Amino acid sequence: AEVSQGHISVVLLGATGDLAKKYLWQGLFQLYMDQVSSGHSFTFHGAALTALEPGQRLMFDVLKKLACPPDESPNRCAVLKDQFLKLSQYHQLKTAENYTVLNREIETLLRQEGLKEAGRIFYFSVPPFAYTEIARHINSSCRPPPGAWLRVVLEKPFGHDLESAQQLAAELTSFFREEEMYRVDHYLGKQAVAHILPFRDHNRQFLDPIWNRHHVERVEIVLKETVDAKGRTSFYEQYGVIRDVLQNHLTEALMFLTMELPANVSSAEEVLQRKLQAFQFLRGLEKNSVVLGQYQAYASQVQEELQKAQDYISTTPTFAGVLIHSDSLRWEGVPFLLTSGKALDERVGYVRVLFKNQAYCTQSETLRDAGHSQCKAKQIIFYIGHGALKTPAVLVSRNLFRPVMPEGSWREAVGQSDLHIFGQPLSDYYVYSPVKERDAYSVLISNIYHGRKDFFITTENLLASWGFWTPLLDSISHQPLRLYPGGVENQDLLDFEMVSGEVAFTLAEPVELLNPNGLMPSEYRTIQSKFRQSPLVSAWSEDLISQLASDIEKTASRTVAHSGQFHLALSGGSSPVVLFQQLARHHYAFPWKHTHIWLVDERCVPLSDTESNFFSLHNHLLQNVRVPYFNVHPMPVHLNQRLCVEEDRGTELYAKEIMALVANASFDLVLLGVGTDGHTASLFPQSENGLEGAQTVVLTESPVKPHQRMSLSLPVINKARQVFVLVLGKGKHNITTLLSRVGHEPRKWPISGVSPSSGQLVWYVDYEALLG
Amino acid sequence: AEVSQGHISVVLLGATGDLAKKYLWQGLFQLYMDQVSSGHSFTFHGAALTALEPGQRLMFDVLKKLACPPDESPNRCAVLKDQFLKLSQYHQLKTAENYTVLNREIETLLRQEGLKEAGRIFYFSVPPFAYTEIARHINSSCRPPPGAWLRVVLEKPFGHDLESAQQLAAELTSFFREEEMYRVDHYLGKQAVAHILPFRDHNRQFLDPIWNRHHVERVEIVLKETVDAKGRTSFYEQYGVIRDVLQNHLTEALMFLTMELPANVSSAEEVLQRKLQAFQFLRGLEKNSVVLGQYQAYASQVQEELQKAQDYISTTPTFAGVLIHSDSLRWEGVPFLLTSGKALDERVGYVRVLFKNQAYCTQSETLRDAGHSQCKAKQIIFYIGHGALKTPAVLVSRNLFRPVMPEGSWREAVGQSDLHIFGQPLSDYYVYSPVKERDAYSVLISNIYHGRKDFFITTENLLASWGFWTPLLDSISHQPLRLYPGGVENQDLLDFEMVSGEVAFTLAEPVELLNPNGLMPSEYRTIQSKFRQSPLVSAWSEDLISQLASDIEKTASRTVAHSGQFHLALSGGSSPVVLFQQLARHHYAFPWKHTHIWLVDERCVPLSDTESNFFSLHNHLLQNVRVPYFNVHPMPVHLNQRLCVEEDRGTELYAKEIMALVANASFDLVLLGVGTDGHTASLFPQSENGLEGAQTVVLTESPVKPHQRMSLSLPVINKARQVFVLVLGKGKHNITTLLSRVGHEPRKWPISGVSPSSGQLVWYVDYEALLG
Repeated sequence: AEVSQGHISVVLLGATGDLAKKYLWQGLFQLYMDQVSSGHSFTFHGAALTALEPGQRLMFDVLKKLACPPDESPNRCAVLKDQFLKLSQYHQLKTAENYTVLNREIETLLRQEGLKEAGRIFYFSVPPFAYTEIARHINSSCRPPPGAWLRVVLEKPFGHDLESAQQLAAELTSFFREEEMYRVDHYLGKQAVAHILPFRDHNRQFLDPIWNRHHVERVEIVLKETVDAKGRTSFYEQYGVIRDVLQNHLTEALMFLTMELPANVSSAEEVLQRKLQAFQFLRGLEKNSVVLGQYQAYASQVQEELQKAQDYISTTPTFAGVLIHSDSLRWEGVPFLLTSGKALDERVGYVRVLFKNQAYCTQSETLRDAGHSQCKAKQIIFYIGHGALKTPAVLVSRNLFRPVMPEGSWREAVGQSDLHIFGQPLSDYYVYSPVKERDAYSVLISNIYHGRKDFFITTENLLASWGFWTPLLDSISHQPLRLYPGGVENQDLLDFEMVSGEVAFTLAEPVELLNPNGLMPSEYRTIQSKFRQSPLVSAWSEDLISQLASDIEKTASRTVAHSGQFHLALSGGSSPVVLFQQLARHHYAFPWKHTHIWLVDERCVPLSDTESNFFSLHNHLLQNVRVPYFNVHPMPVHLNQRLCVEEDRGTELYAKEIMALVANASFDLVLLGVGTDGHTASLFPQSENGLEGAQTVVLTESPVKPHQRMSLSLPVINKARQVFVLVLGKGKHNITTLLSRVGHEPRKWPISGVSPSSGQLVWYVDYEALLG
Repeated sequence: AEVSQGHISVVLLGATGDLAKKYLWQGLFQLYMDQVSSGHSFTFHGAALTALEPGQRLMFDVLKKLACPPDESPNRCAVLKDQFLKLSQYHQLKTAENYTVLNREIETLLRQEGLKEAGRIFYFSVPPFAYTEIARHINSSCRPPPGAWLRVVLEKPFGHDLESAQQLAAELTSFFREEEMYRVDHYLGKQAVAHILPFRDHNRQFLDPIWNRHHVERVEIVLKETVDAKGRTSFYEQYGVIRDVLQNHLTEALMFLTMELPANVSSAEEVLQRKLQAFQFLRGLEKNSVVLGQYQAYASQVQEELQKAQDYISTTPTFAGVLIHSDSLRWEGVPFLLTSGKALDERVGYVRVLFKNQAYCTQSETLRDAGHSQCKAKQIIFYIGHGALKTPAVLVSRNLFRPVMPEGSWREAVGQSDLHIFGQPLSDYYVYSPVKERDAYSVLISNIYHGRKDFFITTENLLASWGFWTPLLDSISHQPLRLYPGGVENQDLLDFEMVSGEVAFTLAEPVELLNPNGLMPSEYRTIQSKFRQSPLVSAWSEDLISQLASDIEKTASRTVAHSGQFHLALSGGSSPVVLFQQLARHHYAFPWKHTHIWLVDERCVPLSDTESNFFSLHNHLLQNVRVPYFNVHPMPVHLNQRLCVEEDRGTELYAKEIMALVANASFDLVLLGVGTDGHTASLFPQSENGLEGAQTVVLTESPVKPHQRMSLSLPVINKARQVFVLVLGKGKHNITTLLSRVGHEPRKWPISGVSPSSGQLVWYVDYEALLG
């Protein structure tokens, strides 16, 4: 029944290295056993820099030790192993000449045996610095003839940040076409990880309604190791846990969970497109998105192995917990926790999806039905391996659904154990484990053979991942690391918690705080006095912003209670950004629904330009609260497709809008800032417009770019019921000092003209601006 | 050390009724014991309709049985009881004359004893139909002289919907000032309920950061009873569980949890203001906000007690589970579950606040520290009484914080028990119980004495609550009830679950579905064929809307992938509302961030008018997704404070905006509807504008109000890449039939002119419109 499908030559570069010894030859032998009757014929070419004789000896020492899988008959295996050894040979690959020879040998063999060539696999099990050289040789000397395929298999690391990854990718792209490259992330060969997408596909009927932010409470993607980096610090010291585990393995699992499910989950192209789309939705990481640790022995291991001085301090993290958010509508608000570390208390890997509990059980808890109670935790766990279960598995809470699993490859685990997994007895779950447990490399080698590119990392995928992680890696390069003793002694030292989109270790570190001034910020609190004859609130900036936000909320609530609406005019610039965030995150009772938002001033750029005051307001405030569209009043700087042209009468338009909605054009609250030159709003010293006169809204000129501005006039500002002026930072100390001395001179210092005719003026000045 | 504070006369109306016997006299005796040395002197006047002699006898039978509290010395108590009896007397209060006499007696006593009058308390323990009469008499005959206060205490029910409550309130208001009325909700006297606000106040430092939607997962407010309504059906049949328990008791607890905390939590005025504000944020209930049940024996109890026929069916619920949402920024998205019922498996009341678990514990679960593990559930429970604990209590998870509790009144429970409460051993909590357990009525009577109006329900509060519940009560009057056997046999029959803002019983009812047409809707699915030479999608309306929403999403994703943005023009009218909701709730991958929203047509009303198409779009779609402000393009019907005036050139403005942003003015997708007269967009038959010519946007006249409209023109619609026409409902059957027969006659039927020049037209017509 054998039909000749052609010959495949497999070339394993680095044939005598660790990975080859441990996994790759065994994977190739498995491939041979599986495919010996497929109609393909094979030869296996081990290659390394070592000369022919010693290389041959080393390689065959490895091959002799190849094991027969337990489910294979010993006789058949012995015969196949014998054949496998005969089909294998060693080559020294060092010079260009060596590659030409190898190519000739393959061609000769094919001709002699009368075989059609199906394709060639080159497996790069070599350090990355050797990639380019080898790639060049293969491209120039070892390509198969037209009609046969070439597959080159690459092992990580693929760069160590976006730039280096781009560079490496560009080099490889000059030798190989995208479809020829198979970048290995061996996690994709882990059976539980490889089953995430098929699971989502087979169980669409159950998951469709619940696989979203309304139902998922959190997701944990975890790889804990007990081993440490001893013996590998020369590699580890350059990479650390984020590059070693999170950027690749855990990120891939994350993508399988968050991506929209393609119609065909085994189409590499569809999967890639959905994955790239999912990357786009990931919210950028900041330094507080992560907690970092280093096991205590690491420093001395590095000192010893890398011959560093005794006082050498490594900033390489060996533990990381990262909080990731996706801003897709499906996942908005759901925390994804990625955690990995060395020298932890157990070896285990898992992906855990915990659902919100949506049930209320009327019956008292003692009477509830065990495994199926709707009030028990609901979770789906892709158990990658090791840990308490000691096997890959898929677990689904019994009160969730009985999953559809492919019968040939996964079977339900029988026999109850008294294990507890994630807070529940094992009997609360449907538990499935692989019919045949397979090593990741043997899965991947089989997928290379079958051309299943969906099990490998494409260039776009790789760069998207580096694009996501690189800003974090840059920002944490000097972040402090928590030292941990390792193993069970870590106790709760590495537990961490999420707080408003950030993470922090749960146990505070016993840190002695440096206190140069003898006074702690929190002891100061806000100080009330007078500035330019008006009330002054002063504090450290953080406290000041809190106070200001509270005062604005109080004014808003009082005004809404009284008149049903609140007209708030906000300034641009950087100081209000922190205020906006404070308002959005902490002032839940703010009557946004009844608040009208006006602009104090605007730059003459389109509203969606990042330079626009409105754009910043939109990003930091409006996107996070619910102000009705009708109550938002950006300045009309962009009319008839042009910016601030007088005859478009944008100033009149805005003035009319104010008249129409704001009683007596008297805003309830105007928030102002002060420039170092004494400007406020966009009213600059010596301005021709806006300092006096009847105009409500004016066009002005700024000494800095963008020059053209639109601004409320001083007279309309002075009609407000309340004006708050916010002044932050050392940079404002000089102007603050000056203002404390001068009188009413708006032409010199426009801010000095702020003096509400019947309203109240309050200054919010931080200590740095006030005291320098 | 006694200083005379004046005399207080307490008049208990209904002095021989059940409530008086069971609680009120005991509460008054407790008041006397507590206040005998306060400097106030007292007399207690029992009153009823019964004549003097028998009334006296009945009343003193009750008084003789008054118990001494266990913490009072028996001697002191005996003496005080003797005094209390001497200070008590019975009055018949039936006629106006009786009240005049009572008043004269009080005055005489005061004169004789030379006492200054402090105030009078009238406690109405009488059926509500008697209120008005009694109130009139008290107001006209029994008011104390100026300088002394009057307090009238009212017992529920206070009406049985908003209208009746308003009527009753109006009557009472004609006799008493607001500050004179003390409406009792005895739940406010339950020690655990009464402690909610003080707890929030004392623990501000811990609660401030977590008392919000970011940290609270859900709240359960529960009162379960084992008793049924036997013997009380004449009352119960008129009220049911929602009026009996949820509208008052559980709603009050809800308010204490959700209201913003006033600066002074014992200021009745501040509490009231915050409470009213909290009521405003409650999202309106709909019939799917509730699950209802009735215990099986109820019907026969009603038949027997109310002499109804054997086939009498009661629609009164004896069990209700209600899902409530607050739209305040603090609570948005947090489910509040209110549950109560009779004939359940246990008697218990509690308010449970379950926090989201924000921690990730790196240590394996077997090694984690028990009570304080950050990964255990975090909850705060106000345990009202009964149940497993058998005492009021406040429980706080040990991994949350050690609460601040007032030492005099609450003490930490000592001695560990092996009880499990809400899934955790009792040892996982800090548990506090009252130093002195007090009956609700004795607490309330003491509060009446102290003038603590914050423990009572003001008129505004009452009406706000009825305003909230009445629409639900109206909408469920014919809702089916799930029958339950009662007691432990209920099993999981009453468990319910939340699904997209609604609740439903977890176990589906085995219902035989009536099926008049012999075909189930779901068997039909969508049918594809042709209509007016264009593709037709047809199905039952629900399926049709799903299909349409999916098709729009697909078009959007494809377009964004291709060109980076998606220009969608939407029509007004009622049909799209369901579509908008479908898009907002189920299409998580919709690329809103890159979508521009345009209007197909608009009515010439302000945008925030409820008649405005944009307003409806805003309410049903924009508020629930995240379209950037810059991408939203309402039609400029309102310029210069006037509507659709030609010289304001709103049509030109909109046309220019389209030209500027939409390549070639060719929308990616235009969604249209059809009127019964064949109009589409706001292009009506015989329209002078918009059916042809170069204009992009036109002003038109509608035959129905509001007459003035702005609309995209037929030529610009026909430039679109895709046009979907949605036609729903029997009302559209005639026009649909007609359209299937006529050709291109836009002047007669504007919709017939829709024929994209290079784009695609698809009809979405539901079966009712298609088949009649």
